[in-house]
Amino acid sequence: MSLSRESIKVFAPASCANVSCGFDILGFALEAPGDEIILYKSNNPGVKIREITGDHGKLPYDERLNTASVAISSLLVKLNLNYGVEIIIHKRMPLYSGLGSSAASSVAAVYALNLLFNLGLNKHELIQYAMNGEFMASKAMHADNVAPSMLGGFTLIRSYSPLEIVQVPSPSNLYYTIIHPDLEISTRVARKILRNQVELTDMITQTANIAGLITGLCTNNYQLIGRSLNDVVIEPTRKLLIPKFDEIKLAALNAGSLGFGISGSGPSLFTLNANQDIATKVGQDMQKVLKKYNLKNQIYTGMVNTTGAKIIG
Amino acid sequence: MSLSRESIKVFAPASCANVSCGFDILGFALEAPGDEIILYKSNNPGVKIREITGDHGKLPYDERLNTASVAISSLLVKLNLNYGVEIIIHKRMPLYSGLGSSAASSVAAVYALNLLFNLGLNKHELIQYAMNGEFMASKAMHADNVAPSMLGGFTLIRSYSPLEIVQVPSPSNLYYTIIHPDLEISTRVARKILRNQVELTDMITQTANIAGLITGLCTNNYQLIGRSLNDVVIEPTRKLLIPKFDEIKLAALNAGSLGFGISGSGPSLFTLNANQDIATKVGQDMQKVLKKYNLKNQIYTGMVNTTGAKIIG
Repeated sequence: MSLSRESIKVFAPASCANVSCGFDILGFALEAPGDEIILYKSNNPGVKIREITGDHGKLPYDERLNTASVAISSLLVKLNLNYGVEIIIHKRMPLYSGLGSSAASSVAAVYALNLLFNLGLNKHELIQYAMNGEFMASKAMHADNVAPSMLGGFTLIRSYSPLEIVQVPSPSNLYYTIIHPDLEISTRVARKILRNQVELTDMITQTANIAGLITGLCTNNYQLIGRSLNDVVIEPTRKLLIPKFDEIKLAALNAGSLGFGISGSGPSLFTLNANQDIATKVGQDMQKVLKKYNLKNQIYTGMVNTTGAKIIG
Repeated sequence: MSLSRESIKVFAPASCANVSCGFDILGFALEAPGDEIILYKSNNPGVKIREITGDHGKLPYDERLNTASVAISSLLVKLNLNYGVEIIIHKRMPLYSGLGSSAASSVAAVYALNLLFNLGLNKHELIQYAMNGEFMASKAMHADNVAPSMLGGFTLIRSYSPLEIVQVPSPSNLYYTIIHPDLEISTRVARKILRNQVELTDMITQTANIAGLITGLCTNNYQLIGRSLNDVVIEPTRKLLIPKFDEIKLAALNAGSLGFGISGSGPSLFTLNANQDIATKVGQDMQKVLKKYNLKNQIYTGMVNTTGAKIIG
């Protein structure tokens, strides 16, 4: 516990936010992919990015602009600590994919800092500092990827003011399949196209579905989870940004998926599935659709990750 | 089971619909008050209302207009049965109170008919016929009082088309206190004053709260239930119909209630409470407010009713 170490290596997973009817409030963590961050103590106060791999040169080395360093700086400033650290970021997941890439970096960064210097904060307390890093990427204080990446499982943001993250129980063997078409959607554009007003009748449908989804998760009712994964407010608009959306959705549901939706603001699309065989078949059938149109993509399949950020070295 | 009987007496409880952030989708059943209905076999085919008590002469004897007889007729017609029945209705609860009076009559009626003639339908199957009776009262196909009155506990209407009622687990010792100010609010007026559009940001808050409420109910987390009982969409408008709303709410919360809201479309106001002592004190303190203004009222306190409609003779 009090063993002094000079460096630490941690992993923070990718995550799926929104989860259909859970727009802006719900998310869950993936087994993989995710980010690895190695943090080194340094004699020079402040935060320095030593190396970034896997980002195809897209992430900034400027410590004032990188999500990981911004998250760490915000925690150091808050605790009034004059420590020095150097960061290596292994980006082992696609950027701008709707899978919470910037959140994974921010989470891994503050999780590592807390352990490296025995700061004694718990995961819930670390979330707000990871959000500061996320802010650098999205220009909004969001926790819907940060919370599941940190805590694992399904997380609900019940309130931002004050920040209240609730861990929602879920079946122990729930399998996601996510397809990431090789295109980029800016979170800011995806938000801009949304209408600011919602029909009251649509709000009622949306609340009924999120209530059904949460009940299904809490009671291990797979069919209820599936029927509730239905978004009448956001998906009808955002799906326009994703080529062949309806055809991919149909393929997933026909292959036996419980439910389907946009991961984050896209372009990744998620499904939840009752077992591994179905999850695999769902992935194959979604890929067949994209293959028809020569659209490159990646598939991620696994069990919902209930651990969240973790030390790996 | 197959014992033939000439009459049956049943009870169906009052219920609290909407439950704050669960507008139009959530409800729970009360221990009391409620309706008693006695159903007699008759040699004359069709439905006849023999007697109504407790309604201060307000309910119709015309079988085409009374919720109980309409509900029964719809079931007889659906099953193509040429039976004859006579009904006695003991209305043991206030009308137009926001406590699901017409739903209780409709539920008791079809529940009694099913048992009296051994029709073999289960409670879930009976709900749609009770809704036909409710339609007579509200001119809308609603299940948010019918479902909890029939099934007991907390019920979620996940979908109307097809009808899907979900029973939401809840803590075994959750106490409601309801205050019914002596005034009438028409459901139709209460609906008419609502805006047809909701801000997207308010929808997000509302979904976060209903998700929190359901998680709290499923995991016996009283504090989460309390924090989630918050309605930013409907209450700000409907509270204008209820005199001294804010003052009563403050009294309830100061007395230790977990949360507070409008029952149905009012004027009744509900609270949920962690134990009986608090529930009692909450009732006393809400009554003090109304007493200041010489507003007559009734208080109902009890544990959430997990039985729903039941045979009592």
